[in-house]
Amino acid sequence: MGTGTVTPATEMLSREELRDRLLAVGAGRYHHQHPFHLRMHEGLLSRGQMQAWALNRYYYQSRIPMKDALLLAKSEDPAFRRAWRKRIVDHDGNLDGYGGIEKWIKLAEAAGLSPDEVIPCVGVLPGVRYAVDAYLALVRDSPLLVAVASSLTELFSRDLISLRIDKMRMHYPYMVDGLAYFEGRLTQAPEDAEFALDYVSTHAGNRSQQQQVIGALEQKCAILWAQLDAIDYAYVSPGNIPPGCFVPQCD
Amino acid sequence: MGTGTVTPATEMLSREELRDRLLAVGAGRYHHQHPFHLRMHEGLLSRGQMQAWALNRYYYQSRIPMKDALLLAKSEDPAFRRAWRKRIVDHDGNLDGYGGIEKWIKLAEAAGLSPDEVIPCVGVLPGVRYAVDAYLALVRDSPLLVAVASSLTELFSRDLISLRIDKMRMHYPYMVDGLAYFEGRLTQAPEDAEFALDYVSTHAGNRSQQQQVIGALEQKCAILWAQLDAIDYAYVSPGNIPPGCFVPQCD
Repeated sequence: MGTGTVTPATEMLSREELRDRLLAVGAGRYHHQHPFHLRMHEGLLSRGQMQAWALNRYYYQSRIPMKDALLLAKSEDPAFRRAWRKRIVDHDGNLDGYGGIEKWIKLAEAAGLSPDEVIPCVGVLPGVRYAVDAYLALVRDSPLLVAVASSLTELFSRDLISLRIDKMRMHYPYMVDGLAYFEGRLTQAPEDAEFALDYVSTHAGNRSQQQQVIGALEQKCAILWAQLDAIDYAYVSPGNIPPGCFVPQCD
Repeated sequence: MGTGTVTPATEMLSREELRDRLLAVGAGRYHHQHPFHLRMHEGLLSRGQMQAWALNRYYYQSRIPMKDALLLAKSEDPAFRRAWRKRIVDHDGNLDGYGGIEKWIKLAEAAGLSPDEVIPCVGVLPGVRYAVDAYLALVRDSPLLVAVASSLTELFSRDLISLRIDKMRMHYPYMVDGLAYFEGRLTQAPEDAEFALDYVSTHAGNRSQQQQVIGALEQKCAILWAQLDAIDYAYVSPGNIPPGCFVPQCD
């Protein structure tokens, strides 16, 4: 992992060492460094490319509460479930329905899409769909510890979202009415990440389980990265949009 | 589907109409038209790119017999299972182990890789992995009819493989010692495709099931296409190889 610690590979890591290993995964593999995000932050994306990103990423957003429901279903502990269900509420909203998913639809509208284009997930890139479905499969098929650990990318999301809000205001002023999703995540994501980090630090009872935690974060980073690979491939160079997928109607 | 027939959307298609619809799916969505294949056939790929293709595609090859085992497990009919298990034998070989998977390793060796680099599937692109895993999930989670239909891309593979053999001899002479896989598939694939086509034609008992058959073929085409998207993205333009993935050591 190259974090410079000297703990032998069979000994338990301390809480601090585990945290350092997880932060090192983020530094090397989180999608803040993906070429598509770099391009976005440099202001180089067209409105059509922003639409393609918002439409494809909606599929991920739409699956988050389903992922969290799969995770809830693994826990026998009402206290854990009460704490974790906050995430479902954050995304699905209260009875008024105004949560993260609705806010993402507003973001897509700001980019120029109608909800009818976005919500059915027709035209989503297969590569994005497979990556997101791999996330649900990982959570469904893994022990609770690994499922919780796969959420730890939220350790890194605050910095990325904060930068993205600035860059959108600067380079994509038409997106300004759609930033409520990111503004909400600025406080939600760090709270969620701290809870998950505390959980895995407490419940990984030996080095092997700690390695599973680290591996789960690596897998989740790859899942986020692969979504941007698919979007970057299809929408940055001409001629690469797969059959049946969303075709932007503006440059 | 734009095949020019006038059968109303609720009436059963004839065997010929169903076949025509399936062929139309292949014409529009099979990966013979993918930009990466077009580049390959024009002789434009470097040896490193051929290696990346062989290494990543090995993950698909390695999962085919697992897919066929999932499919076998769905059938209560010994005669069907006897017929279908031929595919497992074709890929895994007889006791000498010389089957499609072994032949693909020879192909990768012709490209300049060692079996130790290929067999562990370390360095496979996550996008390829997710697409292949989506194929296994489709077969695992669908009725037998849909699982069988998802194999119908073999209707189109003979022409592609035949062209590929010619183009490899012409443009990539170092690959010549690795062509046994493709030579075997020239006869295996059409036999398998005819069996599957006959099966779905006989067992799709109403229009809705026929549409499921067509939809399964569309899904499978997308799965093949997405693998090449990931390979094309990562290995054609510089700077796009995701963290932890295979890096060619030659141009």
